[in-house]
Amino acid sequence: MNQKNPLLVPELREMLDAHDVEALREFCEAAHPAIVAELLSALSGEEVWAVLKHAEPRLGADIFSHLDDDVQVDVVSKLPRGAIARLLTDMPPDDRADLFKQLPEELGDAVLPAIAQAEREDIRRLTSYEEGTAGAAMTSDYATLPPQLTASEAIEHLRRVAPDKETIYYAYVVDEARRLRGFLSLKDLIVARRDARVEEIMHPEVIAARTHDDQEEAARTIQKYDLIALPVLNGNDALVGIITHDDALDIITQEHTEDMEKLMAIGGSHEAGVYLRTSSWMHFKNRAGWVVILAVLGMVSGYIVHSFEDLLMQFAILATFMPMLADTGGNTGSQSATLVVRALALNEISPRNILGILAKELRVSMGLGLLLAVIAFGRVFLFRGGAAAPDEHSMTRIGLAISIALGLQVVTSTLIGALLPLGAAKLKLDPAVVASPALTTVVDITGLLLFFTTVKVILGI
Amino acid sequence: MNQKNPLLVPELREMLDAHDVEALREFCEAAHPAIVAELLSALSGEEVWAVLKHAEPRLGADIFSHLDDDVQVDVVSKLPRGAIARLLTDMPPDDRADLFKQLPEELGDAVLPAIAQAEREDIRRLTSYEEGTAGAAMTSDYATLPPQLTASEAIEHLRRVAPDKETIYYAYVVDEARRLRGFLSLKDLIVARRDARVEEIMHPEVIAARTHDDQEEAARTIQKYDLIALPVLNGNDALVGIITHDDALDIITQEHTEDMEKLMAIGGSHEAGVYLRTSSWMHFKNRAGWVVILAVLGMVSGYIVHSFEDLLMQFAILATFMPMLADTGGNTGSQSATLVVRALALNEISPRNILGILAKELRVSMGLGLLLAVIAFGRVFLFRGGAAAPDEHSMTRIGLAISIALGLQVVTSTLIGALLPLGAAKLKLDPAVVASPALTTVVDITGLLLFFTTVKVILGI
Repeated sequence: MNQKNPLLVPELREMLDAHDVEALREFCEAAHPAIVAELLSALSGEEVWAVLKHAEPRLGADIFSHLDDDVQVDVVSKLPRGAIARLLTDMPPDDRADLFKQLPEELGDAVLPAIAQAEREDIRRLTSYEEGTAGAAMTSDYATLPPQLTASEAIEHLRRVAPDKETIYYAYVVDEARRLRGFLSLKDLIVARRDARVEEIMHPEVIAARTHDDQEEAARTIQKYDLIALPVLNGNDALVGIITHDDALDIITQEHTEDMEKLMAIGGSHEAGVYLRTSSWMHFKNRAGWVVILAVLGMVSGYIVHSFEDLLMQFAILATFMPMLADTGGNTGSQSATLVVRALALNEISPRNILGILAKELRVSMGLGLLLAVIAFGRVFLFRGGAAAPDEHSMTRIGLAISIALGLQVVTSTLIGALLPLGAAKLKLDPAVVASPALTTVVDITGLLLFFTTVKVILGI
Repeated sequence: MNQKNPLLVPELREMLDAHDVEALREFCEAAHPAIVAELLSALSGEEVWAVLKHAEPRLGADIFSHLDDDVQVDVVSKLPRGAIARLLTDMPPDDRADLFKQLPEELGDAVLPAIAQAEREDIRRLTSYEEGTAGAAMTSDYATLPPQLTASEAIEHLRRVAPDKETIYYAYVVDEARRLRGFLSLKDLIVARRDARVEEIMHPEVIAARTHDDQEEAARTIQKYDLIALPVLNGNDALVGIITHDDALDIITQEHTEDMEKLMAIGGSHEAGVYLRTSSWMHFKNRAGWVVILAVLGMVSGYIVHSFEDLLMQFAILATFMPMLADTGGNTGSQSATLVVRALALNEISPRNILGILAKELRVSMGLGLLLAVIAFGRVFLFRGGAAAPDEHSMTRIGLAISIALGLQVVTSTLIGALLPLGAAKLKLDPAVVASPALTTVVDITGLLLFFTTVKVILGI
């Protein structure tokens, strides 16, 4: 729950005004860092720091890491360089690199020299990977073990390094070139004979990701194999970081938001996009692009309607079915597109399965098309009294024409909806780029052409 | 990747034909259980069991747990009762309960007496919780620690129970009534003095879920606090199970799929719904409901068009803008609905924020509406030559009427799109029930009414 507790803000401000250092420190220690961060979010950037600076430095950095990105930048922009450098030094490496990427360039450049060399290089390395890759998502605080240690020595080693590591439940065995030779869980070490050597009990076959892999792929690997952490290797097979189970949850949540928004024709990236804190101008920019493109494309549909004006004047009943035709095409197309996009995202299908998918969608859409054709025919037949149509064309024939057109529209829309994301995946594009609103507009056009053509053919005009 | 390796199937079948028990056992041990399960998925139910029965029973049950639900049921339905009972006994309790729920009732009843009492009661208890709750998602294989043990005794205890527990990285301290008194991580135990007592070093404030909590809420708690496992308490505050980090990933993925499909008007639950293995008939059933309802609702739009036929006959240019109007309303409404549904799901907003959300959507939609109105006016003005309209009404006036109607349509659609999910959330309904296709159909109706009314007012008809 991201709901702030407004009662706490006055109390916190009182402690700040009274310079009650002890109370402020206790406040920081009293709850989970995620909760403390949530409470602090209601304060201004200066106030947040006025609280956090009294916490034990590592705890302060931990709470700070749990703040939203924009609050972090806000806090940091008010601090002297030395304080920023100390804060960055104490932060977990992955959160630190993320913050650094958000800082204005001059501020980043000004702060770097005040940071110790090891941390400075770590920041440089982690920020060098492209956004959205496993390299950009990983942390560099992982535990390694020399192969010749015994199980009890290894446990002792992990005990010593524990405070500095993101996790000690998985430890990695590397050679001099940092190439990954195996991995061990703390459970393996606890269960093993005390004098068993690490190299005897380690698992030599390690599931790993590459720095350039997509972060979502890495998260899915963690999910598939129920891992606590996934090691990340660079081009030389050297271990350079790990992605932990909690990062996997955040990655999958972020990717899902982006998929859903792409599917609904909303642009923009969601590194730090929290709805209420995103400005109206940013919302406008993210939405306007597709809306305008699709509105202009909608004029094509309008042009088609315009060019069949004579037919519409002759058979006014056709206009009555145009919204149903457009809606139904959009709905059935969006359904198949959504199912295919999601199944691709979950690796349930790949473009190689195209024939099986089309066969299935054809069967489903023929069922849906038949059902809707019957409904449309019933509608024409039941209300044939009130309609304005020339006598020489019987209403049955018009009903038949509308029904067949609607059935064809359902089948083509469903197949187009399934084919477009499959095509995108085949071309290594994101299947979700074929947004449902775009699809709706496209099947509007194909649907109207189908509709008028079918009617003309069947009525013999 | 869920891609089967077709090369392995003939090799496996050869081993089976040759009754090469040693090779089959090695196959089961050679890779991660998730990979072995994936390879086995290409075989028939009988063949899967013919392989698994040669694995060490616990490993066989582990591999079996990684098979998709429908494959599990297929395998089990071919087995003698005794074999099913042994398999169920060795499976992780949560997977076992899930399988049991999928079995035909007679088979379940027939198998239960062959299972030892402890496991039988565990199955009865875990299957008793409602689908979608934390109780139904949890496992009962968690580790507990008596409070008076020292750290080194506690580690020794965890070492002994490790093979039977889902995780030993978190252990829970409970009193005689199984009420949760605290929790400890294995890291806490490793770092602590060897003679420190569990009750001294345990964390007495434990983040926990209740059996009746929504499983998604439990998964979000795991995500928020970066937990490896979340304890689940019953109505008497007694510890009854845990949900682990890997379950949280699966829950969030499943909930994402359901949210996305609901938003696209696709019904059905996704406990075991893998696209290609879901029958065409099931796909049809999941999709037909909304498609038919919306098609019938689309006839209302048709009726509105019908009732303004005279106006359309008089100003044919109006028909040209109808598809653009309908598309744009649907698109802008779906955008705001999607953003609000997602922000609600991520707890970024709640119905209490309604005024802030409406203010933001009003600003954004006024910008979008203005932009589109200008485009529409430009279109009317530029192509005024070819249009068929009575002379006494100047094209400028018609263009103005169309532009204003389009602007109003964008603003109302956006606000309706934001309001409907907020209203659903306020009524404790799932915000995603207000599917985007339904919204599109609704704003079609409001849009057409707005359009014709605005045009009539401005042209003074």
